[in-house]
Amino acid sequence: MNAEIIAVGDEITSGQLLDTNSQWLSQRLAELGIRALYHTTVGDELEPCAAVFRQAIERADVVVATGGLGPTADDLTREALAQAASHPLVLVPEALEHIRTLFASRKRPMPKQNEVQALFPSGSRVVPNPHGTAPGIDLETARPGRSPSRFFALPGVPAEMVEMWPYVASALAGMEKVARVVCRRNVKCFGAGESQIESMLPDLIRRGRTPTVGINASQATIILRIAAEGASEAECQALIGPTVATIRQHLGPLVYGEGDEELQDVVVRLLAEQGKTLATIEVGTAGTVAQWLASVPSKGCFHGGLVAAEADTLGSLLGVDSALLARHGLSSGEAVEAMAVACRDRFRTDYALGVSAFPEPVPVGVEPKPVFFALAGPGGIRRKQVPFALHPALLTTYCAKHALNLLRLALLGL
Amino acid sequence: MNAEIIAVGDEITSGQLLDTNSQWLSQRLAELGIRALYHTTVGDELEPCAAVFRQAIERADVVVATGGLGPTADDLTREALAQAASHPLVLVPEALEHIRTLFASRKRPMPKQNEVQALFPSGSRVVPNPHGTAPGIDLETARPGRSPSRFFALPGVPAEMVEMWPYVASALAGMEKVARVVCRRNVKCFGAGESQIESMLPDLIRRGRTPTVGINASQATIILRIAAEGASEAECQALIGPTVATIRQHLGPLVYGEGDEELQDVVVRLLAEQGKTLATIEVGTAGTVAQWLASVPSKGCFHGGLVAAEADTLGSLLGVDSALLARHGLSSGEAVEAMAVACRDRFRTDYALGVSAFPEPVPVGVEPKPVFFALAGPGGIRRKQVPFALHPALLTTYCAKHALNLLRLALLGL
Repeated sequence: MNAEIIAVGDEITSGQLLDTNSQWLSQRLAELGIRALYHTTVGDELEPCAAVFRQAIERADVVVATGGLGPTADDLTREALAQAASHPLVLVPEALEHIRTLFASRKRPMPKQNEVQALFPSGSRVVPNPHGTAPGIDLETARPGRSPSRFFALPGVPAEMVEMWPYVASALAGMEKVARVVCRRNVKCFGAGESQIESMLPDLIRRGRTPTVGINASQATIILRIAAEGASEAECQALIGPTVATIRQHLGPLVYGEGDEELQDVVVRLLAEQGKTLATIEVGTAGTVAQWLASVPSKGCFHGGLVAAEADTLGSLLGVDSALLARHGLSSGEAVEAMAVACRDRFRTDYALGVSAFPEPVPVGVEPKPVFFALAGPGGIRRKQVPFALHPALLTTYCAKHALNLLRLALLGL
Repeated sequence: MNAEIIAVGDEITSGQLLDTNSQWLSQRLAELGIRALYHTTVGDELEPCAAVFRQAIERADVVVATGGLGPTADDLTREALAQAASHPLVLVPEALEHIRTLFASRKRPMPKQNEVQALFPSGSRVVPNPHGTAPGIDLETARPGRSPSRFFALPGVPAEMVEMWPYVASALAGMEKVARVVCRRNVKCFGAGESQIESMLPDLIRRGRTPTVGINASQATIILRIAAEGASEAECQALIGPTVATIRQHLGPLVYGEGDEELQDVVVRLLAEQGKTLATIEVGTAGTVAQWLASVPSKGCFHGGLVAAEADTLGSLLGVDSALLARHGLSSGEAVEAMAVACRDRFRTDYALGVSAFPEPVPVGVEPKPVFFALAGPGGIRRKQVPFALHPALLTTYCAKHALNLLRLALLGL
């Protein structure tokens, strides 16, 4: 079984918006053993859109389109699909009711214009959209002499599209021809570069090996991607397991997690296991460490963080000695240590993590000012400094990862 | 003159790699007044690839393809284009010479396999690739009864593709019909929904109007995209200006900015103009307001923010009355007001912005718990509460925008 993925919208063909939906959908389809043959993007015009849909129905068993389901005049997916499949648009009362309910729960009147979102090509099933006004479309289209093509139209808003995916996945799982399964597992590392990590491994990363192992770096996180194909998930996992074990054995504590796990997930898990609490104080990183920690279900481990954009704040909120800050400067190991100690004291936590970064672009060849890290904890203070030669836009992410890794290693007793 | 952009490669159709080339190329073509009608991605298979190329030559005046020019067996762009255009492959000695030179300068022997990179469809011009082994292809293909289509094939490696673009740009500039320029301006609104904003405008959003106006929503920000085509940038801007004025007149303070401006940029600009300072206290939004404010050059206006993940923190750091918090609960107008007042006091700023959100998924139809906002400032307190029926992943962004908009309106005296 094969698929075509379509993105609809002038904002994509014109280059104003980067389409990330199609990649995500390819990955999800691959997990179901369905290979995407084409990605197509078309603008907000009826005829080209209908022609693209018609071609996709013709050449792919499954079509997943995103975008063009909004209520405004340039949202043409409904109409284009009705034309392409020769199924006229009809009003679906249950969809209208959903849209009405959604507006009512937001205490806003439903504009007349939104009624068009309840129009569906005849014979469609409605794909529920729990948090948006645009329901999706699930339409089977007959193809003379062949099995029908199944067309799913989802909203272009990534969060809504992602939330509606399980409907599509279970609809596809119900179709007979899904046979081979592809499973993937990602092992995530922090603390060394891509080529250093590659050189620490035996010869895993080469074409033709089973399972395949790929390596890539994403903002200082090194990801090893292991993939295997088989008749069942169990078969795939049996192939992948020993490779993961080999990787972990060779890389030791450089490996911090798998799959979607980020450093903050691991740190919070370790804190919870050890019954410890944490607070943060950040200068120059826009509170990125606090944001990441607060975005994870923290089970009460993370108490909060202070984002200090001015030095005054360190005195007025944490009681850091202003003479010490004046003597050493904010960008110093002494300052960040005093910040971490004061933070631990004021927040009354077991650990406090401090970062002091002054993101400034530096010409190539010039040594950049280091970023200073400190961890105050029951076992005393750990300090670290790293000179980052990075674009300021990347610096906060790198800093936040280094800070969390400092805590991770401390929690592991390393 | 219109264009189709094609990306070739299994790594893209399979979802392993995100295609960013097509967006970049759309932007560059638009600058030359050439509108991309389609983006198409196809895997590394000869027949589908040739069919995609054939269709593109048929429906677009300019085709720019990336990928599939490497030396290995899965690099099929040369052969597919030869088939699609019915121009057989021939060896181009100058291209072979370039590849040889490149290997020599790297002090490496040239593998026999790389000779295929010197094969071009007959009649092609070679697009030089200063830093890679894959030269590009520039091929004009006759179309019966119409002007020929111009096909450019470039490497998929973004850095090489970008470096080779000037060749394509000047080739296109040499073609007679590139005369027109396309300019765009985006007007950004906050505080009403997409269809409500559309209904407040006169009939601007319809096909065929000049300049064109599109509307779309991006996480509660409504963006009106105005585009005009003309002989010069000045002519385009003259067309766009009155439409922007009409939009601003009808939408009033719902419009907060243009182009890349975000609410935090506007808020910081207004604070700086008025010589005022700001601090934030956030519960349940992971410090998103502080992060956005700290990521903008703030000219000293933003002093910092507290991210409170536990109620204790409000007492220990801000001195908020714990009896009051216990009486009303953290999720209350009273609590957020007390937080904002205490925050203004401790940070010693002119304004303090408080948010208290408890992101929980709520089934459709069930009233969600409102998010509470408070602004403490020289003119007193402003409070606001909004019941968000949103996916928790979106909630923090929406909350941060509502908080900043509360401050924006206060700074505008509205």
